[in-house]
Amino acid sequence: MAQASRLVDLRKELARRGLDGFLIPRADEHLGEYVPESAARLAWLTGFTGSAGLAVVLADRAAVFSDGRYVLQLQAETDPALWERRHIIEQPPASWLAAGTTAEARIGYDPWLISEEALAKFTEAGRTLVAVADNPVDAIWTDRPAPPLAPALPHALAYAGLESACKRADLGAALLAARQDAAVISDPASIAWLLNIRGSDVAFTPFALGFAIAHQDGRAELFMDPAKLPDATRAWLGNDISCAPRAALAGALAALSGKRVRVDPAGSPVWFAQTLRAAGAESGAGSDPCLLAKACKNATEQQGARAAHGRDAIAVCRFLHRMDRPDGAETEASAAAALLALRAGLPDFRGESFPAISAAGPHGAIMHYRVGPATDRAIRPGEPYLIDSGAQFLDGTTDVTRTIWIGAGTPPAELRDRFTRVLKGHIAMATLIFPEGATGVHLDGFALHALWQVGLDYDHGTGHGVGSYLSVHEGPVSLSRLARPVPLAAGMILSNEPGFYLPGQYGIRLENLLLVRPADAGGGGKPFLRFETLTLAPFDRRLIDQALLDRHEIAWLDAYHARVLAEVGPNLDADTAAWLQSACAALPPGV
Amino acid sequence: MAQASRLVDLRKELARRGLDGFLIPRADEHLGEYVPESAARLAWLTGFTGSAGLAVVLADRAAVFSDGRYVLQLQAETDPALWERRHIIEQPPASWLAAGTTAEARIGYDPWLISEEALAKFTEAGRTLVAVADNPVDAIWTDRPAPPLAPALPHALAYAGLESACKRADLGAALLAARQDAAVISDPASIAWLLNIRGSDVAFTPFALGFAIAHQDGRAELFMDPAKLPDATRAWLGNDISCAPRAALAGALAALSGKRVRVDPAGSPVWFAQTLRAAGAESGAGSDPCLLAKACKNATEQQGARAAHGRDAIAVCRFLHRMDRPDGAETEASAAAALLALRAGLPDFRGESFPAISAAGPHGAIMHYRVGPATDRAIRPGEPYLIDSGAQFLDGTTDVTRTIWIGAGTPPAELRDRFTRVLKGHIAMATLIFPEGATGVHLDGFALHALWQVGLDYDHGTGHGVGSYLSVHEGPVSLSRLARPVPLAAGMILSNEPGFYLPGQYGIRLENLLLVRPADAGGGGKPFLRFETLTLAPFDRRLIDQALLDRHEIAWLDAYHARVLAEVGPNLDADTAAWLQSACAALPPGV
Repeated sequence: MAQASRLVDLRKELARRGLDGFLIPRADEHLGEYVPESAARLAWLTGFTGSAGLAVVLADRAAVFSDGRYVLQLQAETDPALWERRHIIEQPPASWLAAGTTAEARIGYDPWLISEEALAKFTEAGRTLVAVADNPVDAIWTDRPAPPLAPALPHALAYAGLESACKRADLGAALLAARQDAAVISDPASIAWLLNIRGSDVAFTPFALGFAIAHQDGRAELFMDPAKLPDATRAWLGNDISCAPRAALAGALAALSGKRVRVDPAGSPVWFAQTLRAAGAESGAGSDPCLLAKACKNATEQQGARAAHGRDAIAVCRFLHRMDRPDGAETEASAAAALLALRAGLPDFRGESFPAISAAGPHGAIMHYRVGPATDRAIRPGEPYLIDSGAQFLDGTTDVTRTIWIGAGTPPAELRDRFTRVLKGHIAMATLIFPEGATGVHLDGFALHALWQVGLDYDHGTGHGVGSYLSVHEGPVSLSRLARPVPLAAGMILSNEPGFYLPGQYGIRLENLLLVRPADAGGGGKPFLRFETLTLAPFDRRLIDQALLDRHEIAWLDAYHARVLAEVGPNLDADTAAWLQSACAALPPGV
Repeated sequence: MAQASRLVDLRKELARRGLDGFLIPRADEHLGEYVPESAARLAWLTGFTGSAGLAVVLADRAAVFSDGRYVLQLQAETDPALWERRHIIEQPPASWLAAGTTAEARIGYDPWLISEEALAKFTEAGRTLVAVADNPVDAIWTDRPAPPLAPALPHALAYAGLESACKRADLGAALLAARQDAAVISDPASIAWLLNIRGSDVAFTPFALGFAIAHQDGRAELFMDPAKLPDATRAWLGNDISCAPRAALAGALAALSGKRVRVDPAGSPVWFAQTLRAAGAESGAGSDPCLLAKACKNATEQQGARAAHGRDAIAVCRFLHRMDRPDGAETEASAAAALLALRAGLPDFRGESFPAISAAGPHGAIMHYRVGPATDRAIRPGEPYLIDSGAQFLDGTTDVTRTIWIGAGTPPAELRDRFTRVLKGHIAMATLIFPEGATGVHLDGFALHALWQVGLDYDHGTGHGVGSYLSVHEGPVSLSRLARPVPLAAGMILSNEPGFYLPGQYGIRLENLLLVRPADAGGGGKPFLRFETLTLAPFDRRLIDQALLDRHEIAWLDAYHARVLAEVGPNLDADTAAWLQSACAALPPGV
């Protein structure tokens, strides 16, 4: 097995360097969600392909850690003879490392692949780690792919809504208020937003890999391979943005000697703070100054999101119609391909926003299941089917999940009970009105309540932020008991996706995107917020146990379905429109 | 005015000592809620008598800070010509101080009256404060009362449920696991729990003021005036607990040189950590090791709580009956006195657990209103009346709030709407089932939801922990968006007290105590928890807008009232029992 020999090779390389161990995070130099193949060290070494995780390799033990979403996938993709498989929250890597080593052990890490905060967890657990200049994995990964070189292109004002110069002026004012001279921006999504550019270096998220330093006076330095910057892009960036290759970065940081420079301790590689301090600059804490501004979509972006969701709904409704008359020949892979093909015909479509989860029956319980040749199977009548997918459009990013019943017959009562409880959670979140200042931690429980009441829950957050033709998973806000203490604010787009998973049996997830808006709640004069649902697609009424819904929930569902029909119906072919009409019918009265 | 000349005197004293300012927290050396008169420096200096607050005095400015509960009281009790009045969360004292001083200013503090964490807020805001050996307030407070000297008495095993030796053995094991040699215990409630003693040094909370050092081997050192320790108590404490006056404390800490000693950075005065460090001991962080164990009541304490609530209900029901036929002559003060008299006749009653809030009409909007000669007024027909009160019994502590309609006639529709939304929040919390691991932050919103939906809320937590014949406000857990990240656990007792306040008009609060119990929720195999309601008293059905309640809420209310009638009714006189029967009738069907 490749993984076995790679682990042997890595241990030899570590021994050669006098290291007793090494951390291999699932990360590139931007600490983002999607990493280019050239940085997929964790997958190459361990086999685990989930989007969050970390391996720790010692001379005699090794472990891979990931979170609740990936419990089954971690088991399936890694070899238990080589790797202990652990829950990253319940059994943190820092504790595992501290328990398995002495304080004298030399444990290495790559300072480009871990944040200052993540590194501190190991220090707090009593282990001082050693920064390693060249990643030992790269030394043994002889056929490592080259980094991507896709061009960075202008993102037109008709979509961005605000000129880069205005964004940089606001950012400069924020730095002034924080008494900081400059800020390191290592997140390519932040750079894409700040400079109004987009790219295609990684799958699913349309940014261009690079780094930037934003200055208090509104200027910015962009560090990106010159081959990625066509003349048109350089002209679009203008004279206040200088461009230089990444090799110039260390020098640019050294030039900040004596200045106060903001580096996000959670979001930027610790290399930046270390390099700044070594250069005599003051590395000041503070989150990426683009995060909050990027999360609060402006009026143009909000209108773009509505338009993008209106178009996306055409593909989703046509897909749901297609799946409502299965001939038994459709497989998970063919269904996903069919949905992609339907989306590909829509105006301004630029690709999927993440790998679609097309999961029949028990596969639905694998929260981030990804169909492949080895797992693909027919979608059979008499089982539920879960489809979680999204699209990148020039004017917005979508993400939608539906769970439907395949074929004829009545679904089992337990499945309908669970589906209805998930739907109740979805409706509770969609209809929530809440005060300004509330964070995701305060709201998450509303989506869980109906499951909690029968001793059930789900091991993932209820929702994540979504970008505007950017990352489908965008910070800083989420609906989760682990959410950061950042309040929800008008203009944010969040997913609303409660679920329920019975391993080996089925999975249920119901997801719409929500736009945060001011609520005209009357009452006490304090500012309140509410959600506007952006996603338009029917919920499968066959899976609803209507006796579990109260009249407010029924009213919401009927109104939502009426809206779906009114907004999407006119854009459909006659066959699909007829199907949508019946799928969107009101629930029968008086049940 | 006394306050004006006191402020002048304090400024002179500060100038004499070369200080540019001084902090006056509402605190004694135990940082607890109720402080003896000898430590009521904030009230003496500013006039503000609320249970949480802080004053900062500078040469030319001075401010008093308190939280949302005390907004109106702070305005009423302090002179705006002398004091700026601020919200302690929205305008933190540290920011106010930083904005009003230069980094060179010498701002003093008394290290006995502030925790290390609270002090750090000022350091983080850029101001280094100076520890002052003798409190400057004491220098000008010439008629300061002497500290209390009430005796510490044994708390029998029939109430405590677990011998002190067992508690100390568990504590020692926890210190061993944390690799700590000893722990400072500065909270008299923790000492009372750990040593199974009670006292009466302060009003409302039956502990004896003192300090302790608990050792890994199960021994403890108690620092308390010998006059407070009768022979019977010394015998009860046994040979593993040494007793010494408080003056011996510094020496005892010095004897820990070279040891690792736990000091709660949030709960203990910073004097302890400073003294330990100066003595060459290692001051290790960690919360008071009694906190969590004390909060999780054992089976004896749980049974005691049920019995105490059963007795308390007799007084509360008789009181509510009395208030249901007002003759117009009852005032807030006479009503509170009547309730106290009813409680005083109950077995094992030892006093109120806090100053009763007896508030008619607009006084109900003052969240911690305390009736006095200047504010007392008649309770008039045609207005709501709020009574929040509690008792200390040997077997448990109670805390109950009801809001009732006085007199005949139908209450206004808006009042009934608000009352019903508060009741919906109360029921939502009472019926909640939630997974182990959830904290108060995750649950608080359920009590607010019905108010949020019409743009209303309340500016206090939904619930606080309650002790077992100890403090009615007990950590470490609360139901609040500001709750500490400590999960709820079986055996904890918490209040459930949503409210609504319309300043100048009325206040509503509905409070029962809840016991956390394991839930037999079935389902997914994970451990879940639920609440058992301990408090037994009817809610005023005249204030309920039944159209706002769903069938689950109506079922809960009817079942609760049936339980109140069944458990309390047999212990009442015939008149009160007849009244209770009608007060506990089921809501009319089919409204």
